[in-house]
Amino acid sequence: MPDASQATKRPPPLAGVRVIDLTQVYNGPYATFMMARNGAEVIKIEPPGGEHLRRRASGSDLPFAMLNGNKRSVVLDLKTPEGVATVLKLADSADVLVENFTPGVMARLGLGWDVLRERNPRLIYACSSGYGIDGPYRDYPAMDLSVQAMSGILGITGFADQPPVKTGATLCDFLAGTHVYAAVVTALFERTRSGLGQMVEIAMLEAAYFSLTSNLGTLFRAGGGEVGRTGNRHGGLSICPYNVYPAKDGFVAILCSNDKHFASLTKALDMPELGNDPRYGTNKGRVAAMEAIDACIGARMSTLTKAEAFARLMRHHVPSAPVRTLREVVDDPHLHARGALRWIDHPQHGRLVIAESPLRLHGCERADDAPSVPLGQDTEAVLRSIA
Amino acid sequence: MPDASQATKRPPPLAGVRVIDLTQVYNGPYATFMMARNGAEVIKIEPPGGEHLRRRASGSDLPFAMLNGNKRSVVLDLKTPEGVATVLKLADSADVLVENFTPGVMARLGLGWDVLRERNPRLIYACSSGYGIDGPYRDYPAMDLSVQAMSGILGITGFADQPPVKTGATLCDFLAGTHVYAAVVTALFERTRSGLGQMVEIAMLEAAYFSLTSNLGTLFRAGGGEVGRTGNRHGGLSICPYNVYPAKDGFVAILCSNDKHFASLTKALDMPELGNDPRYGTNKGRVAAMEAIDACIGARMSTLTKAEAFARLMRHHVPSAPVRTLREVVDDPHLHARGALRWIDHPQHGRLVIAESPLRLHGCERADDAPSVPLGQDTEAVLRSIA
Repeated sequence: MPDASQATKRPPPLAGVRVIDLTQVYNGPYATFMMARNGAEVIKIEPPGGEHLRRRASGSDLPFAMLNGNKRSVVLDLKTPEGVATVLKLADSADVLVENFTPGVMARLGLGWDVLRERNPRLIYACSSGYGIDGPYRDYPAMDLSVQAMSGILGITGFADQPPVKTGATLCDFLAGTHVYAAVVTALFERTRSGLGQMVEIAMLEAAYFSLTSNLGTLFRAGGGEVGRTGNRHGGLSICPYNVYPAKDGFVAILCSNDKHFASLTKALDMPELGNDPRYGTNKGRVAAMEAIDACIGARMSTLTKAEAFARLMRHHVPSAPVRTLREVVDDPHLHARGALRWIDHPQHGRLVIAESPLRLHGCERADDAPSVPLGQDTEAVLRSIA
Repeated sequence: MPDASQATKRPPPLAGVRVIDLTQVYNGPYATFMMARNGAEVIKIEPPGGEHLRRRASGSDLPFAMLNGNKRSVVLDLKTPEGVATVLKLADSADVLVENFTPGVMARLGLGWDVLRERNPRLIYACSSGYGIDGPYRDYPAMDLSVQAMSGILGITGFADQPPVKTGATLCDFLAGTHVYAAVVTALFERTRSGLGQMVEIAMLEAAYFSLTSNLGTLFRAGGGEVGRTGNRHGGLSICPYNVYPAKDGFVAILCSNDKHFASLTKALDMPELGNDPRYGTNKGRVAAMEAIDACIGARMSTLTKAEAFARLMRHHVPSAPVRTLREVVDDPHLHARGALRWIDHPQHGRLVIAESPLRLHGCERADDAPSVPLGQDTEAVLRSIA
């Protein structure tokens, strides 16, 4: 009962913070989504025709609706002097401006940090790009797939006897967007001391790098040679069991990071012959017999459904999980019970699953839910407010 | 030249913020690492024998050194009343306490939020776990691999005719850790208004969910059925070219999100027959001929090295990147030029690559670099300070 002790919640933490949002697709929009859910006033500037994600033929309306709730929509053409002048005027009364254009675009538009800070020294200017605002790769076009490749994440994903494979999720964009949010709020906190804004910057490549910490450990342990792909096994091939095993109707991930987990696993799956084998009493012994143990567990698992196996494993506290389909995730009773997901009837897009910001501040309210709005709905009202 | 305009930098943004760090491995330690690099005083509480990552046989010392620079190390046994009493006393003068134990552990130790807030109403208490502090999955043991499975990320990664495969990177831990940092700093900002601390909470499963936004769009577009694995192709199979192609000495990722990119690609690779084919003038036409186009580009790419192909593609601004090895990433001239990576001679661990926090605040200094310290180095000094 997390909230019982804080019966009276305070206003959303970013209430009163005004954000000019020039971002598109995932990286920037995820950052400003979390700001909006925490009570910031987010004014999303879209080009005529709408932000890229609004127009994208390749997805449903879900991605736009997921990331753009609680934002106002203002259409401005930044290719015209009027459009640029309006952004300047909006930035004068803003606390934060966020953009994820290619480096150099804002300066060419006449909206560079030098110009904006001159007009509003309290402004926090946040920019995010694939490789950052300087350095040799600055001008390389970057998207999630290319940053997955460049970061090394793609190369170490997949089976050893197969080509490398991308992560299905858009991880580099979202890692970057979370860091953008983090940098902006850090600057807001700092501004309460200095009274000054600043430029904050996130490079997707750098935001992705730390997720390789474990693999980099393996690289250095191997003397700096190379790290191969290990499929679903431990990246350093030094924990066993650690794999994804075939069940009757899908797959289940299991990892035993200590001997107790292994003992519990053999109980959960009724495999005393495995549990009693003295060679397998230590992780070292199990690693030496990885093929045999994986085959043994795989054979047993394939007699159970995902749900049966998972129920047994949870009863014995073995770290594990079914490999779920997206359909199962969207309908997950746990995520719905926690309010992390909820079904809404979106005024434009129909019945959709909307996700709450993962940032749970138990002492504060969140902004009231408001679905994403049609393109340009707030143009007139916002322009009037700065006229 | 990002810094030229801000010649005089201000102190690190979190200077004066004191953090009690009870975290281990990746999720929590990454959050407190970013706090430490931004100037917070981070007091890392370790059990006798040291934090799990310090003792881990399966990696080198690199992961610990990467995540624990600029932190003090204090050894306390939380299984003793003295250890618990010391944490309580430390929390009395702290701004933030971070933990990533299984839910319920802190309360059982006598260190629950109810106890801590009573003593120090300004304290921000941050907790992170796999599934959160309530809901049906609360007590399930969770690690990166199991959250990859549970979130759906694992199931959509891999080739259609192969089993699903985990992401090689530890993405769920690091997505969560970034959100932990974000939530803590949001609460610090809010405290400048309310004067009060609060509990903030991150569930790894929720922090991972948003990275599936694009795939969820595909799910809903498909009428809510299922989303299959598409290997290195676009998740919705609706962009072409979009793949990882074999070069002479490795692989290169290429994506053409519009017709201009495709025209540039055919120029970059000297493939006029592809560029001039009227059937391929639109993405729709290319998607219909995906197999043929991928085969054609693949054949051409396999006559070039990764470096040759990438140089050609960059000259024509085609979104693409070589699939790099970890060795290539660690030695990357761009990351070193930006100060994102640097070689150090670590006093305990020898020559290592250390990574800078991805949060770049151009108006502020960072904390002076300090390498991770031996276990318990600061126990005496810290205990004396609260005696």
